[in-house]
Amino acid sequence: MARVDLNCDMGESHGAWTMGHDADVLPFVSSVNIACGFHAGDPTVMRTTVRAAAERGVCIGAHPGLPDLLGFGRREMAVSVDDVYDMTVYQVGALRAVCTAAGAKMQHVKPHGALYNMAAVQPALADAIARAVRDVDAALILVGLSGSALLTAGATCGLRTASEVFADRHYRADGTLVPRSHPAALIVDAERSAARAVQMALTRTVTAIDGTDVPVSADTICIHGDAAGAPILAARIRAALELAGVAVAAISAPAHP
Amino acid sequence: MARVDLNCDMGESHGAWTMGHDADVLPFVSSVNIACGFHAGDPTVMRTTVRAAAERGVCIGAHPGLPDLLGFGRREMAVSVDDVYDMTVYQVGALRAVCTAAGAKMQHVKPHGALYNMAAVQPALADAIARAVRDVDAALILVGLSGSALLTAGATCGLRTASEVFADRHYRADGTLVPRSHPAALIVDAERSAARAVQMALTRTVTAIDGTDVPVSADTICIHGDAAGAPILAARIRAALELAGVAVAAISAPAHP
Amino acid sequence: MARVDLNCDMGESHGAWTMGHDADVLPFVSSVNIACGFHAGDPTVMRTTVRAAAERGVCIGAHPGLPDLLGFGRREMAVSVDDVYDMTVYQVGALRAVCTAAGAKMQHVKPHGALYNMAAVQPALADAIARAVRDVDAALILVGLSGSALLTAGATCGLRTASEVFADRHYRADGTLVPRSHPAALIVDAERSAARAVQMALTRTVTAIDGTDVPVSADTICIHGDAAGAPILAARIRAALELAGVAVAAISAPAHP
Amino acid sequence: MARVDLNCDMGESHGAWTMGHDADVLPFVSSVNIACGFHAGDPTVMRTTVRAAAERGVCIGAHPGLPDLLGFGRREMAVSVDDVYDMTVYQVGALRAVCTAAGAKMQHVKPHGALYNMAAVQPALADAIARAVRDVDAALILVGLSGSALLTAGATCGLRTASEVFADRHYRADGTLVPRSHPAALIVDAERSAARAVQMALTRTVTAIDGTDVPVSADTICIHGDAAGAPILAARIRAALELAGVAVAAISAPAHP
Repeated sequence: MARVDLNCDMGESHGAWTMGHDADVLPFVSSVNIACGFHAGDPTVMRTTVRAAAERGVCIGAHPGLPDLLGFGRREMAVSVDDVYDMTVYQVGALRAVCTAAGAKMQHVKPHGALYNMAAVQPALADAIARAVRDVDAALILVGLSGSALLTAGATCGLRTASEVFADRHYRADGTLVPRSHPAALIVDAERSAARAVQMALTRTVTAIDGTDVPVSADTICIHGDAAGAPILAARIRAALELAGVAVAAISAPAHP
Repeated sequence: MARVDLNCDMGESHGAWTMGHDADVLPFVSSVNIACGFHAGDPTVMRTTVRAAAERGVCIGAHPGLPDLLGFGRREMAVSVDDVYDMTVYQVGALRAVCTAAGAKMQHVKPHGALYNMAAVQPALADAIARAVRDVDAALILVGLSGSALLTAGATCGLRTASEVFADRHYRADGTLVPRSHPAALIVDAERSAARAVQMALTRTVTAIDGTDVPVSADTICIHGDAAGAPILAARIRAALELAGVAVAAISAPAHP
Repeated sequence: MARVDLNCDMGESHGAWTMGHDADVLPFVSSVNIACGFHAGDPTVMRTTVRAAAERGVCIGAHPGLPDLLGFGRREMAVSVDDVYDMTVYQVGALRAVCTAAGAKMQHVKPHGALYNMAAVQPALADAIARAVRDVDAALILVGLSGSALLTAGATCGLRTASEVFADRHYRADGTLVPRSHPAALIVDAERSAARAVQMALTRTVTAIDGTDVPVSADTICIHGDAAGAPILAARIRAALELAGVAVAAISAPAHP
Repeated sequence: MARVDLNCDMGESHGAWTMGHDADVLPFVSSVNIACGFHAGDPTVMRTTVRAAAERGVCIGAHPGLPDLLGFGRREMAVSVDDVYDMTVYQVGALRAVCTAAGAKMQHVKPHGALYNMAAVQPALADAIARAVRDVDAALILVGLSGSALLTAGATCGLRTASEVFADRHYRADGTLVPRSHPAALIVDAERSAARAVQMALTRTVTAIDGTDVPVSADTICIHGDAAGAPILAARIRAALELAGVAVAAISAPAHP
């Protein structure tokens, strides 16, 4: 039976500011990536988000980002390899303790925003993240962009990895994402995104922008939780997957018999 | 054989700014309290400080503080019980991961500055800290001011506690510290501080400012590491203790046979 | 003809996080207090908020707060007199430059949250704020709680002051606010708040919680902009005032002939 | 009579952390660039530094940086043109108010670290800085690297500009600096730096690393204030300049008769 993980970034509120639709998206996903305070989130938001996920049985991951609250971790910074190693250990450790205190378990780590993008193409930074994750807990799963340097680095470090794909983004024939600057980067129709999610989960291919079907490694599908229609998109993707006979399950969940 | 722990705050540099005399004090103490990034320290300073302590065999503790870098965690803030619980879990968890990644072990937690002072007299905040420490790792030792609400809260939570005294501060006849605002609060002479350390370790008493000897619970003696003469003071106190036959050993160290 | 100013806090978004209903409240108020980056706001939000207010002809004030983004400036901190002087100069200066760059003029300064509350009852902090405002621009108007130490300090410094009242809060017979901790602190009915606004503007009295009418100095009425119903409350208060023949005009606006 | 300005970055302490040798360098320079709180400095440090410079009659400039305290503003960030415009207005405005409150005058603006480097080669960011400075106060002088995009942008905006050179850095034959990554980037001998300062001020040339003399526009010579030997270097350069008959004077100082 085909299966896939549905993940969403959560816990991106900060102090008096709220963001996202966490409570409305949570019922439809199998894992969440929780901000760790550097680009979003704060110690209290982390606790409430961890508890909400644990109560739902949704698997928890750390979502470390660059130290740039004002830029929401989306602005690339010329950080060093040591900077990246250290900020990853720190943030993963902080969320890990929040999980421990809540009686929950951390399943995975997925970098956020600019750190995710930089780790996709800069092997030295990817290696720093992978080593940091391994050094904190070698049982953690490292989630990265399909085909990215981060997944390679994770495998080299001996970590289990998970390859992430996007149901609401167009792909090029070489398997990379059409950049956001391109007018056709995004797929805004929820039904079409849901159909693509089913295709990726069932056939492990995606139809590129030139019409060709290209292979993708689709371990987990990302729902962008801060978009206005995130809960509806999550619900439709989940419904379409289940209707097509695809099991939605966290990466670490045991295989069905 | 009498024994006592000598502790010092460390890792209080931040980015390009350095503070303290960590390398020069480290040889003389048996445990260190490492800042966790909220009032001082940063992920890189935490790693280098943890490694330096581990290489020396000095026991490591987390030194969580209020989220006030500009005020160095010394300004009291009207934080809630939840704020304190959450910021303690977060910071202890971050340093714990740094220790794990460095192959080191965390021994204890000692709050910093205004958080330490507030936790000494506000039972609800003391309880929040104690619960946070226990929820992250029930084997951690909670260090607080002798006679403080923090030690009571730690014991109530089932934590092992350690009572801290100061060799360079005057005490009142009721066992509390003479406030810093008092002209005679500080003892600036290193030899006199050393003699007081020996008295506290050997006799478990301190001579109060009115001349009476009052009992103190002296599990650990604090060296103020940011003072100009910190390395010399640390060296003298250690030498005086050893000359008097007092073993200087971390709180968790096994008893001598 | 009776007149009163209607003011609202604005520009409290930060980076990717939005807060308040600025665009919907702006048409109904005569002055706004714009956050300056310490408790909320950021340089870009400040620019866009200043421009929006200037386009509407709404008078602009600086809304300096404590350096506590996570606590939204609502947590009291043990800041020194120098801290308060310096943070006020800094924040007022930053917003002043944003106004200058936008071709707009700054009319007033109103401290935010915990700083506002502390300045209401601590004369030394009130004096620090008043001196800071005067030293940056002696033509600025200082806005504070009616009957507060801040207004006294402003007058002593030679500043023009404006006394602020609240249409949605209960008062005690001594003219002070019923604390928020009291169950009857808030008036949640918009029509009742509007009626109170009219009473305060026309008669310069407010009906205290014990039923007695007490005098208040009502130069400006505050609309809480982050409440869900803020735009409706602002619209109703403005409509009720105008219907009662009260002119809604900024403090610095020239008197009608 | 030949003349040149000697400038140094100052006010780079932050809260409890000190940096630099401000008091020891101040007697030897004619202008200072004061950090504005984003990469270093804080409201209190700004006030004390402005007052110290004003008492000495040293001219004051704002030294705005990227919002990266941890990285001391030295890490390039993918900031937008609007980000740069807004952060420059904000920081220049904050320091301007500190000057006003101290009865001092601001003479110039010089960006810090990564912002300085980015503005040297990215015309759009250079233009954002120049516009921001002009929009706050068109009488301010914009200081930038000799031959940089920032000076071009300043001139285009109608600002007076000043071209900065380095006495302790090697130059290439095209007039650009030998990058810091090159082993021969720095000149560590103070006498040699002093001789180069004299050459640059008297002949408006510098001897490049290949031995050729190339023209440089030397309006102001930078002393790196955070280096251990900064006060001695500043003293030697000043003495050498005066011995050679070069007047050391701020850019805005009137010409000698």
